[in-house]
Amino acid sequence: MLVNGRRVAQVRADDRGLAYGDGLFETVRVRDGTAPLWRRHMARLAAGCARLALPPPDIALIEAECMAVADGLTDAVVKIVLTRGVGGRGYAPPQDARPTRVVSAHALPVPYTRTAAGGIAVRWCDWRLSAQPALAGIKHLNRLDQVLARAEWCDPAIAEGLLRDQRGLVVCATAGNVFAAIDGALCTPELTQSGVAGVCRATIIAERLAGDVVVVRDMLPAELERADEVFVCNSVRGVVPVSSLGARTWRAPGARTRAAIDALAQLGLPSESSP
Amino acid sequence: MLVNGRRVAQVRADDRGLAYGDGLFETVRVRDGTAPLWRRHMARLAAGCARLALPPPDIALIEAECMAVADGLTDAVVKIVLTRGVGGRGYAPPQDARPTRVVSAHALPVPYTRTAAGGIAVRWCDWRLSAQPALAGIKHLNRLDQVLARAEWCDPAIAEGLLRDQRGLVVCATAGNVFAAIDGALCTPELTQSGVAGVCRATIIAERLAGDVVVVRDMLPAELERADEVFVCNSVRGVVPVSSLGARTWRAPGARTRAAIDALAQLGLPSESSP
Repeated sequence: MLVNGRRVAQVRADDRGLAYGDGLFETVRVRDGTAPLWRRHMARLAAGCARLALPPPDIALIEAECMAVADGLTDAVVKIVLTRGVGGRGYAPPQDARPTRVVSAHALPVPYTRTAAGGIAVRWCDWRLSAQPALAGIKHLNRLDQVLARAEWCDPAIAEGLLRDQRGLVVCATAGNVFAAIDGALCTPELTQSGVAGVCRATIIAERLAGDVVVVRDMLPAELERADEVFVCNSVRGVVPVSSLGARTWRAPGARTRAAIDALAQLGLPSESSP
Repeated sequence: MLVNGRRVAQVRADDRGLAYGDGLFETVRVRDGTAPLWRRHMARLAAGCARLALPPPDIALIEAECMAVADGLTDAVVKIVLTRGVGGRGYAPPQDARPTRVVSAHALPVPYTRTAAGGIAVRWCDWRLSAQPALAGIKHLNRLDQVLARAEWCDPAIAEGLLRDQRGLVVCATAGNVFAAIDGALCTPELTQSGVAGVCRATIIAERLAGDVVVVRDMLPAELERADEVFVCNSVRGVVPVSSLGARTWRAPGARTRAAIDALAQLGLPSESSP
């Protein structure tokens, strides 16, 4: 772990990241010294800095630190935390903020449990995401929504939970985005009120990994439940097919999901399979 | 500063307080070894722990640590941060969470600038608070709303900013609650969607510090602007009269505000006056 470039494992207790969640993070898959979705991670980090009025990130420095912590690892997750740095008591951001960087390497997570149908089982979370258009999309450190949604279950047979917003519209999974093939079109929810705009999601949309243009739109839970196929994705696990949601089951992966998995692997990011 | 009872000034960089804002805080005024609103601070902290599914706080231990850090100070602010502790990468809270406590003493803030009319100048913030009924009221560590609202101005002549929610209703100030005397009744906004239920606010309501029963209700900006008197309050500065909001001005303090200031002083919490 590197904290502002030094091999220590602590931050100051008066850091604004701890005090207020005043910062951003990224979790980046690094394989043999390369991060396949690096540019999109850094684009989102820069967009987050702009939204929080933090100085633009020093991308070359962050990249060097990511490669340093992942050195010798064949496949790892590198987490980058960037905060507004230390600051006195009080919400007012210091004029001369000196951000804190924490860069750490981690093993890949244990793969999700799969069902006999080949995908994962997911559930609806009762927790509804906060509505905040001014923070939607960026990966900031205010993540109580995700923590408390993920705390709803501990059955390891349930791999993920799907989240709705205050209006009841589908947004995402607790740690990933969601796509559904509905009436022949691959769709994913708008993230204008809530949710994180994942880099894997962005890649699937921008590079048409699943074939056709993705329709980004409001999505009702009932629409997702009657979809022909559903998958979740994030930049660590890749694309993961869903094979059950409550009483609804799917044979997985469907054709769109298979296409996205294959195209993402071509970009250097193999999706996880069964444990 | 005490971190888990030790005189250090750092926390582990993998603390969930930093990673996700997964925790709570309190800022407590301590005068000559006593904290006048202590029970309400601890009631809110306990309520916050219940809401976040954290273990109940060890109040005797926290009190001892607060008194230790404030020892020798005649009038100070003690900040208590309580997080879910260290945890691996991933939102799922550890089953055996061991919370992190950070207790630190600080000088009182510089008093707000006053206008010639005796109160403070406040403004409307453009920032709208997140809507999240499940987290409204508690003092959790997800405070980007307050940070970014407070970042809207740096003119020291403006002491505070008033915040509205996503619907446009009045909620609070960036670091305090707001009361207004409207048509003869002292009113304060509901905090069912957003905002922190301040302990000074709770005291004013429960102990009728300003006289009559307080009406807790939805409040439109226009109602506040036509109020007969307005004050903000928090547990550090006490009750502070507002003497201007945009073009609207008030002679301050009004009778209700004066009553609340006096009653709060009787409880051992003198409100700040001019610098």
